[in-house]
Amino acid sequence: MGTELLDAFAQKYKLLLDSELRTLVSKLDSPPIIKESMIYSLEAGGKRIRPLLLFATLAAFGADPQKGLHAAAAIEMIHTYSLIHDDLPSMDNDDLRRGKPTNHKVFGDATAILAGDALLTYSFEVMANIPHEFATDTTKLKLVIELAKAAGTEGMVGGQIADMEAEGKSLTLDELEYIHVHKTGKLLKFSVLAGAIIAGASQNQLENLSAFAHHLGLAFQIQDDILDLVGNQQLIGKPVGSDTTNHKSTYPQLLSIEGATAALHKQINLSKEHLGMTGLNTNLLMEITDLVASRDH
Amino acid sequence: MGTELLDAFAQKYKLLLDSELRTLVSKLDSPPIIKESMIYSLEAGGKRIRPLLLFATLAAFGADPQKGLHAAAAIEMIHTYSLIHDDLPSMDNDDLRRGKPTNHKVFGDATAILAGDALLTYSFEVMANIPHEFATDTTKLKLVIELAKAAGTEGMVGGQIADMEAEGKSLTLDELEYIHVHKTGKLLKFSVLAGAIIAGASQNQLENLSAFAHHLGLAFQIQDDILDLVGNQQLIGKPVGSDTTNHKSTYPQLLSIEGATAALHKQINLSKEHLGMTGLNTNLLMEITDLVASRDH
Repeated sequence: MGTELLDAFAQKYKLLLDSELRTLVSKLDSPPIIKESMIYSLEAGGKRIRPLLLFATLAAFGADPQKGLHAAAAIEMIHTYSLIHDDLPSMDNDDLRRGKPTNHKVFGDATAILAGDALLTYSFEVMANIPHEFATDTTKLKLVIELAKAAGTEGMVGGQIADMEAEGKSLTLDELEYIHVHKTGKLLKFSVLAGAIIAGASQNQLENLSAFAHHLGLAFQIQDDILDLVGNQQLIGKPVGSDTTNHKSTYPQLLSIEGATAALHKQINLSKEHLGMTGLNTNLLMEITDLVASRDH
Repeated sequence: MGTELLDAFAQKYKLLLDSELRTLVSKLDSPPIIKESMIYSLEAGGKRIRPLLLFATLAAFGADPQKGLHAAAAIEMIHTYSLIHDDLPSMDNDDLRRGKPTNHKVFGDATAILAGDALLTYSFEVMANIPHEFATDTTKLKLVIELAKAAGTEGMVGGQIADMEAEGKSLTLDELEYIHVHKTGKLLKFSVLAGAIIAGASQNQLENLSAFAHHLGLAFQIQDDILDLVGNQQLIGKPVGSDTTNHKSTYPQLLSIEGATAALHKQINLSKEHLGMTGLNTNLLMEITDLVASRDH
């Protein structure tokens, strides 16, 4: 997807993460069907963008990215639980995700709800159990608290509720931004911050990385909206124009395609500006940022 | 419900807990509807048996029960989330709980799912945020990990899955016990252990309190099954005999009423025996145990 350097890095840590996720669930002393259901969705072919951000942030500090393996697994569990619950009939009612039947189509609604609950619960256990050579107890507690904030009603769940309330309404740009900042932005931002916290970042670095991730998250979402309008259906995995059909407010709709493209570049520039102020070796993070701006799916 | 001593104790800490729960949710910077939904179920009139066990355990150590206020709130959030999700149409499909419309009947299925997710997520934040004068970082991390184990697939969620798989089947006594030990027992046990951990219990005390809570949980469940068969419908809040109608395996069905009553008393005796070995002032815990054996709803 990117240069050879980023590709090799992403590939290496994706394999490590996939293996860690499987190990973490397999070792649970639990009824087999719930473990199957959890693993089914964890292995449903995500891009692992949040873990990649976490690993690349650790690399920017010159730290061993493996220090972030548990935190990355915890974050991916939260992301996966949110997809399982979002896909349920009483939420988005999606039968397919990334071309595969959604969790509840395979395991039934009740087990899907519980698999989501189980992944959410386990993520905190995994985060609290980071090996002590990678994080002190104080650091682990901070990670637990920030993960809960990013995932809860002040973060992802709050964004999801706001998104549901927005259905069928025309939104202002501020309302649209609230939804994206919360629904997807807070967990993306936490992925960067978790790496920074584990690496022992200074307050100034935390602030710049936080701003970097905030703008990157918005850029990601604007590009999503643009792709929905002009993208290739096969590459993006859902019908082009489905947001319009579903009467969802989008950046191109509020700003026109040209305006949305300008907003995208503004967010990309802001995120790079903050990256530049960290004093870190941000090659990989810069590359990821460029990819967000130029991705076609 | 009990003696004046227990009644006054239960009343005092129930009021403190109710107020704490409301404060914790109210202060969230989140869309109002999700906070309303969370508070609706938190205030739906539960007996607060888990918090009472936690507070009474702290009292047994001569510690200030208020030290357990945050942990009690976290546990009650987990218990409440589990009720919201259990009541959903794709789970037990219950319209009423304790005589009030269930969460999804008032707020809709999607918001109910998210309110459950939000309470589950917030409980870990609340636990990790116990004020430092009540618990060290190491203690708080231990509480987070044990809460996750009690609530997850090795605890409550695992029991719920096993219960679903058991529907329409005749169970052995071991299978029935697996369900109860996990579905309700693990969180009850954790309520006692959380108090003990905060109070700084010795390993030996932890083991005896753990055994106490294990047997108390089983006693509670056996009495539940007996009441379902012979209880007063008005007092227990559901039709007498509904387990039989729903083809659920129960203790009286496997052991006869006499056998179940004997099993109840055996569990009560075992729990008291272990309490007696803690060397603590267990008046309140003994009283709670007697209440479980003699309760009529």
